[in-house]
Amino acid sequence: MAGPEDGNAAMSLKSETLRDIAMKGGGYYSQATTGARDVIDGAVELLLGAVARMDLRRARPFTMTDMGCADGGTSITAVGRTLRRVRALAPERPIQVIYTDLPRNDFSQVFQTVHGLTEIPTYANDIDNLYVFASATSFHRPIVPPATLDLGFSATASHYISETPCRIANHVHMVGAEGATRAAYAEQGRRDWQSMLEIRARELVPGGRLVLLNFGIDEQGRHLGSTGGVKMFDTFARLWRELTEADTIGEEEFLNTNFPQHYRTVAEFTAPFEDPANPVYRAGLRIEHVETRIVPCPYASAFAEHGDAARFAREYIPTLRSWSETCFAAGLDPSRPLEERAAILDHFYDSYEALVRAAPEGHGMDYVHCYLVAAKSAAAA
Amino acid sequence: MAGPEDGNAAMSLKSETLRDIAMKGGGYYSQATTGARDVIDGAVELLLGAVARMDLRRARPFTMTDMGCADGGTSITAVGRTLRRVRALAPERPIQVIYTDLPRNDFSQVFQTVHGLTEIPTYANDIDNLYVFASATSFHRPIVPPATLDLGFSATASHYISETPCRIANHVHMVGAEGATRAAYAEQGRRDWQSMLEIRARELVPGGRLVLLNFGIDEQGRHLGSTGGVKMFDTFARLWRELTEADTIGEEEFLNTNFPQHYRTVAEFTAPFEDPANPVYRAGLRIEHVETRIVPCPYASAFAEHGDAARFAREYIPTLRSWSETCFAAGLDPSRPLEERAAILDHFYDSYEALVRAAPEGHGMDYVHCYLVAAKSAAAA
Repeated sequence: MAGPEDGNAAMSLKSETLRDIAMKGGGYYSQATTGARDVIDGAVELLLGAVARMDLRRARPFTMTDMGCADGGTSITAVGRTLRRVRALAPERPIQVIYTDLPRNDFSQVFQTVHGLTEIPTYANDIDNLYVFASATSFHRPIVPPATLDLGFSATASHYISETPCRIANHVHMVGAEGATRAAYAEQGRRDWQSMLEIRARELVPGGRLVLLNFGIDEQGRHLGSTGGVKMFDTFARLWRELTEADTIGEEEFLNTNFPQHYRTVAEFTAPFEDPANPVYRAGLRIEHVETRIVPCPYASAFAEHGDAARFAREYIPTLRSWSETCFAAGLDPSRPLEERAAILDHFYDSYEALVRAAPEGHGMDYVHCYLVAAKSAAAA
Repeated sequence: MAGPEDGNAAMSLKSETLRDIAMKGGGYYSQATTGARDVIDGAVELLLGAVARMDLRRARPFTMTDMGCADGGTSITAVGRTLRRVRALAPERPIQVIYTDLPRNDFSQVFQTVHGLTEIPTYANDIDNLYVFASATSFHRPIVPPATLDLGFSATASHYISETPCRIANHVHMVGAEGATRAAYAEQGRRDWQSMLEIRARELVPGGRLVLLNFGIDEQGRHLGSTGGVKMFDTFARLWRELTEADTIGEEEFLNTNFPQHYRTVAEFTAPFEDPANPVYRAGLRIEHVETRIVPCPYASAFAEHGDAARFAREYIPTLRSWSETCFAAGLDPSRPLEERAAILDHFYDSYEALVRAAPEGHGMDYVHCYLVAAKSAAAA
């Protein structure tokens, strides 16, 4: 089955490629990245707080990672504000920032963004003694040497699980799964979160911090695109199911379409830090802050202003498509000619657009994140 | 004028994009990269010797840079053999390798090559405690924090100068320039080499090494494509000049075509290490080894075997074009429509191919490099 290593799905949800967006003009740019940037900009105070609690009087370089960075554009303000604060508190200390994503990510775009070769303002040219790197190592493996990481940051990345444990019979996403299927996704999500944290625990210096923003399910059961209105993933599943009823796709293709994701609850996020027998707890990692937050869908917000259903549908669907298409494409029988698969996907997203145009109320993709800050105790090994 | 920051010219000479070459099939791949790989593979003993003279019993990570790495393919054997030796001599020590090039380089290709996602064998999966990074920082600026670099490596990159100091009246490359023009290129080359070495001196740990392979002019005046037969850069200049005589291009366009390169002599390479007043000398950098070497043109060698002039011309010209076209394109008047510029370039390289086909003897692009190893004295700051 398709896993997150198969494509750039992990990055698309954070922001469409800035280069593509830039070509569409300024207005489109700002709307398409507003939500993902708002999620990260909202974490600036958490990042600055984490820095404030560190002892920065060290000679060795200060090292920060941005894990699952995509093109580096959505986090650039938050990373810049954080590193400027480090520079102010530790004027002489070398600062290293490492942007990480999967090998097929467009790292040239990351560097062009961070080094100021695009129109996006960057911090890189006004912080001295700063060293910018990229890594294509998955966060399920060690990215930096042991005990060298001061601040590990990640936004909207770790909901991707390393493999899909099973097919989901009547849905396309684990949020619509029940029983043993749901439990299998939860178990895969648990294992990946556990390993991700254990590896970070070894990377962190004593006193180092993690600031992790992840898609999750909040205390009221809300999650991405499901905050009281029309449920986005249910819509995906229903429209995909309708294609089987119309014999456009086969039953096997429906069954083979499963987002390789697990949306964790707050209890699932915090468990490894709270069980004294857990290796994460034993490595000295403790939660300093945890909360869930909703960041509103910028397209639905714009619709509330302009009231033009056709425009809302036309602007909203491409952003859904940008991160979900990989998953639906992977479900299709690879023996179909490429053009046929493209036509099916066009038809599918057209049907979603028609639905929104006809009855726009309640549609939207609000972001639901768990914001978590953890520290490695200064006494830990 | 065109500088090396304007494109990927710096990497093209080392190897055409492996992905492009792979699409052309196995035979083409091996021939197109043989020369550049031979240059680097020939430095393995120098790299292993440098490692053997280091004190590797340190806890901090061992750090190597490959500066001007292009797609990382041509150096992969040499880097792998070097890092395996480090691992054997220092089993517990974390190893960091940092691939550097300009921001527009295809770093995704670098990562795919090094992490084993292509058909090229890699070292990355069988050295434990290894961390692979990329940097898009020019080697005219600090790439890593002060006193953290153990082994700085660079192949076929530093002949690119940071700017062209003046136009060359009757040629396209400094090897055909004389008098004040030649002196201006030499001065720019001197300044860039000086700054490159000063910055490396700060990066190196005491006892660290540089292994630098650079295009140069050897003791008998030989240089790239000029080793006794038909002189490649003279051919470029003559055919480009003929286009002005045919009114295909204008005199200004000829004058605006200047390779942003300086080929240094051995004396120019070694000067900063030998003058006690030079900051490089004062930082403790000393030459351990210097020599010039010629690596034969794989296309001319193949022609000596197969004797088919048309085949030689057909195979040889694309490799010249891959690294030189950026320069000739930059010389053309930008007000010409893109298609017109493309047609001029096609015509230009076709004329070179016709020349080789009609009289193949003596054509070829032998590589002439200066191989240099330097150490930072263990007592240095």
